[in-house]
Amino acid sequence: MTKGAMLYEGKAKQVFETDNPNEVIVRFKDDATAFNAQKKGSVDLKGEMNNAITTLIFDYLNHKGIPTHFIKKLDEREQLVKKVHIIPLEMVVRNYSAGSMAQRLGVEEGIKSPVTIFDICYKRDDLGDPLINDHHAVFLGAATYDELDEMYELSSDINDILIELFDQMNIILVDFKIELGKDSHGKIILADEISPDTCRLWDKDTMKKLDKDRFRRDLGEVTEAYVEIYERLKKVLNK
Amino acid sequence: MTKGAMLYEGKAKQVFETDNPNEVIVRFKDDATAFNAQKKGSVDLKGEMNNAITTLIFDYLNHKGIPTHFIKKLDEREQLVKKVHIIPLEMVVRNYSAGSMAQRLGVEEGIKSPVTIFDICYKRDDLGDPLINDHHAVFLGAATYDELDEMYELSSDINDILIELFDQMNIILVDFKIELGKDSHGKIILADEISPDTCRLWDKDTMKKLDKDRFRRDLGEVTEAYVEIYERLKKVLNK
Repeated sequence: MTKGAMLYEGKAKQVFETDNPNEVIVRFKDDATAFNAQKKGSVDLKGEMNNAITTLIFDYLNHKGIPTHFIKKLDEREQLVKKVHIIPLEMVVRNYSAGSMAQRLGVEEGIKSPVTIFDICYKRDDLGDPLINDHHAVFLGAATYDELDEMYELSSDINDILIELFDQMNIILVDFKIELGKDSHGKIILADEISPDTCRLWDKDTMKKLDKDRFRRDLGEVTEAYVEIYERLKKVLNK
Repeated sequence: MTKGAMLYEGKAKQVFETDNPNEVIVRFKDDATAFNAQKKGSVDLKGEMNNAITTLIFDYLNHKGIPTHFIKKLDEREQLVKKVHIIPLEMVVRNYSAGSMAQRLGVEEGIKSPVTIFDICYKRDDLGDPLINDHHAVFLGAATYDELDEMYELSSDINDILIELFDQMNIILVDFKIELGKDSHGKIILADEISPDTCRLWDKDTMKKLDKDRFRRDLGEVTEAYVEIYERLKKVLNK
């Protein structure tokens, strides 16, 4: 397997082709952005930590029967994944109020929701990745109603598994963002990453934020938070 | 029936109590606001026209089996309605792209949607009446999932009836906003108004806007548009 040309460069990752048309290499960068790239910076070790954390979580999800794009970790910054056609919707799953949802609804952060909240956002940087609903997604041709149902079901299953996993790490899974894609057979699978960049993770005892909000809100100890998540994850997974 | 104290004053209407605790009087004003009251003005005859148009449409919907709060027109500006507990969600039903939806999705106005689009917005002026989804509404305690299903079904039925009614008037029903409330028995019924203030109505031949967008966008001939809708409505309903 050889690394070919760069196919895509995003805010936190690069994607390279391989000699297999159905597989690509993802490279995790230390670059960090927030608020639709209005805030930019770099977090030491972030690329390595997110690669390692995503590897452990996706491997765990694969074993739990969740279809993901993950094949294997290649080195500190790179992993091999199935090539997918990304559905242009960000799926946000929320167990507690926080971030844009708390702002939108005018409520405090940290309120436990009696129901799981699913937000879909249209992946369009120029529009600020706006919150949309199912009808908009169908209007845009981004997904059909049946595909959306499948996406919600998959997201709900992932949420159940992750709540339990983070609970074992003494962490509250406040919310997380995932991206889904279609593989070469048209099957909807989990893609992108699951890491402190894409989750809100609060320590159960201290309520300390162990995620990208430390960068977004200039809370300090950003690298330490990512390392802390990796260490706790390795411990509960015996890796 | 006597008119009592004013219970509420909104941007375009006032509500007064009556000697019947289950009935209130709605008075339609000429005041016009747009963009969350950032733009303010007055439109001659608007109060009278919206009272007359809402009377004709709600009476028509009542006869078609849609439960509404409307009882009877009292005079040029006032109508008697059932008192309801307004559900704090605006329901927007869209057949074509326009307004905030076109902006949000980055599309042109006037694209016919292959599916009916329902938006729910949280009625909170201080938050700018944000678009939310069903999960947010349940989180906020604004409605249950079952109530939301009932609201969508009722809105869909109203849309079917109105598309046909406006079609007879040679008008495209682009979109409309309704408010729903619970009557004294807890039943969900249509409240508020249906008028050029709350609909986008385009002439089929000329595509001329015959609604509040004439005020919002300073297109002129605002009163004339409201009068035109009233005249065409009277004609097709033989009133």
